[in-house]
Amino acid sequence: MLEISEIFNASAVLKDVARKTAIIPAPRLNPGVDIYLKTENLQLTGSFKLRGAYYKISQLTEEERKRGVIACSAGNHAQGVALGAAHCGIKSLICLPAGAPLSKVEATRSYGAEICLVPGVYDDAYARAIELQKEHGYTFIHPFDDPKVIAGQGTIGLEILEQMPDVEAVIVPIGGGGLISGVAFAIKTLRPDVKVYGVQSSGAPSMAASLKEGKLCHLADVATIADGIAVKEPGVNTFEMCNKYVDEVVTVSDDETAAAILALMEQQKLIAEGAGAVAVAAAMFDKVPVRGLKTVCLVSGGNIDVTTLNRVITRGLNKSGRNYAFIIDLPDKPGQLSGVCSVIAGHGGNIISVAHERINTSSSINGCSIRVELETRDHEHISAIRSALTEGGYNVMN
Amino acid sequence: MLEISEIFNASAVLKDVARKTAIIPAPRLNPGVDIYLKTENLQLTGSFKLRGAYYKISQLTEEERKRGVIACSAGNHAQGVALGAAHCGIKSLICLPAGAPLSKVEATRSYGAEICLVPGVYDDAYARAIELQKEHGYTFIHPFDDPKVIAGQGTIGLEILEQMPDVEAVIVPIGGGGLISGVAFAIKTLRPDVKVYGVQSSGAPSMAASLKEGKLCHLADVATIADGIAVKEPGVNTFEMCNKYVDEVVTVSDDETAAAILALMEQQKLIAEGAGAVAVAAAMFDKVPVRGLKTVCLVSGGNIDVTTLNRVITRGLNKSGRNYAFIIDLPDKPGQLSGVCSVIAGHGGNIISVAHERINTSSSINGCSIRVELETRDHEHISAIRSALTEGGYNVMN
Repeated sequence: MLEISEIFNASAVLKDVARKTAIIPAPRLNPGVDIYLKTENLQLTGSFKLRGAYYKISQLTEEERKRGVIACSAGNHAQGVALGAAHCGIKSLICLPAGAPLSKVEATRSYGAEICLVPGVYDDAYARAIELQKEHGYTFIHPFDDPKVIAGQGTIGLEILEQMPDVEAVIVPIGGGGLISGVAFAIKTLRPDVKVYGVQSSGAPSMAASLKEGKLCHLADVATIADGIAVKEPGVNTFEMCNKYVDEVVTVSDDETAAAILALMEQQKLIAEGAGAVAVAAAMFDKVPVRGLKTVCLVSGGNIDVTTLNRVITRGLNKSGRNYAFIIDLPDKPGQLSGVCSVIAGHGGNIISVAHERINTSSSINGCSIRVELETRDHEHISAIRSALTEGGYNVMN
Repeated sequence: MLEISEIFNASAVLKDVARKTAIIPAPRLNPGVDIYLKTENLQLTGSFKLRGAYYKISQLTEEERKRGVIACSAGNHAQGVALGAAHCGIKSLICLPAGAPLSKVEATRSYGAEICLVPGVYDDAYARAIELQKEHGYTFIHPFDDPKVIAGQGTIGLEILEQMPDVEAVIVPIGGGGLISGVAFAIKTLRPDVKVYGVQSSGAPSMAASLKEGKLCHLADVATIADGIAVKEPGVNTFEMCNKYVDEVVTVSDDETAAAILALMEQQKLIAEGAGAVAVAAAMFDKVPVRGLKTVCLVSGGNIDVTTLNRVITRGLNKSGRNYAFIIDLPDKPGQLSGVCSVIAGHGGNIISVAHERINTSSSINGCSIRVELETRDHEHISAIRSALTEGGYNVMN
């Protein structure tokens, strides 16, 4: 069983390796909640995973260190193990599914790991890692269900209590549960009055389901933009610790997560990945009872692909009514596009793209169809422009 | 003349208002330079401007406070003055050009300022602000050429010396010169051995030109994605201070700035605006002699429009060879697109969009043209795919 002394020990070991990331106020995310962000997206490797991986590796025997370590991950854990092993001067081998994003493969390699790309999906890479471990005697570094790894992640709990002694609630993302197990254990041991809430994606609610059923549940499928917490089954240790130390586990949707990513970018100038933004989403959308409380949301990581980020931005702008595309049927004669543009400009819409298509099954044979994309203030603004177009005699199709 | 004691005083005044922003290591931006980031993009209001504005306002007489303050800005200064005035419990009126981005207008309003939208451009808004000032007796808060404002910005210099006593060089963005005047004065007064470099955009090099000419230069036109430092003429005070305290002023291009914004997002999980990224661009592209030095780049702000950010990301990916669109002429018969896609997939390119156009002046009358956009690793990867397509008999047009 984990002891609080081990988390203090992990803190000491991590002192010169991991950053003590700042806690930053986020006053505009939800006017009803006094939100602060523990910025582990600004941790080295872009996520908290370095803490657990490094602490685990630092505690290996001389014999184990000589043989090296192996891990299986397409994401943050891979980078944490790679940099952790490099710091300890030992060899690391990371198995990744062959289809893993190039940027993550390159980042892992850049920290000094040897990469083994395995054809297939995560499960295939995992199977191969286990084979290689047996063959060569590497130590397998589990991404979450290991007391040393949990102790490493728990150092974040100590830091929160030290950096903000008057904290009243902490919200933590949950994938396999290693992060929240460490954080909740540290906080509830030292300050049982502080609430600890966990957040999963509604597309991968394995811990939430397990706690509800009172036993480990295995999900057949998981699908979420928060790929860092898309875990089918919690760990044995982490399930037990969540059951004991976490006040409540809730879920957020992909749309809520995307809105949180966008809000963090716009209001806080921070990049969070999906998994890193779910705690913020829970606070923004009142999923947990923290109204009026001094609340720390753990932003666990920032390793999001920029192309995914582009999609999230577009989705988020759409959802909040700050971007809209009208599709309009027009007679194919001169001056029509100009007329539409002038109505839009007259109502303060800022056109960002126009697609003009003459052949279109929905328009009349002499007509054409245009798609005009604009920046808008909010949903009301969109309605006002729509009314003006309709009143101007334009046939808005959507 | 500014005294160092005034900067210490400003530090004390700002203690409970501005965040002491973290300095974060950025080991991968340029392997030859030991780069750290002073993250003023994580300052309240998203930029350092709060410091100077608040300190200036805090030093007004009771009589001046009663009448309120006025400023003219479409950007960070507006938000700094609005929040600074709100903290002091006094009224602020901000004149903005009517075409200012909605997001910036709303942010300024949200900090409690009254907004005056003036038809026309910045100069018109400025003229109106001066009129209103005369009419109502408001105090005009200059964005940079005011000793109190400069003293407020200079607190960043004190923080850098305190947070990183072994710093060897500091790189600072320059628009009107208020920020660098304060920072360079503080650093050169206390630690003359530390180098201070300034960076402007090559599209708005007013301070660089002025220092070269030995007198204030007025640029007729400025054009840059770093809109926060697009200033036509430095201040009288700031010119003099830069001349005295800054080691060298260099410029960076928009493409270099965009690459820096992208690198900050991907490697550091930080959003910087163009003006906020120029110091990083200078360090990344070896514009200043800091090889081997422990160097702090000041990331001055993060208030960038998300739509601009989307464009910057696309541009940056293109420039680094991680995104490319092939245009290919094909005979218009079944199976052609499938063939192209399989060549690309066989070489590890990840297709993200396909546009298929039958009518195209460049293709033969029975042909069609396709545009295939893909994610790639680098420029070499693009060349390899191009060769494979050509060898496969496909007619690559670009």
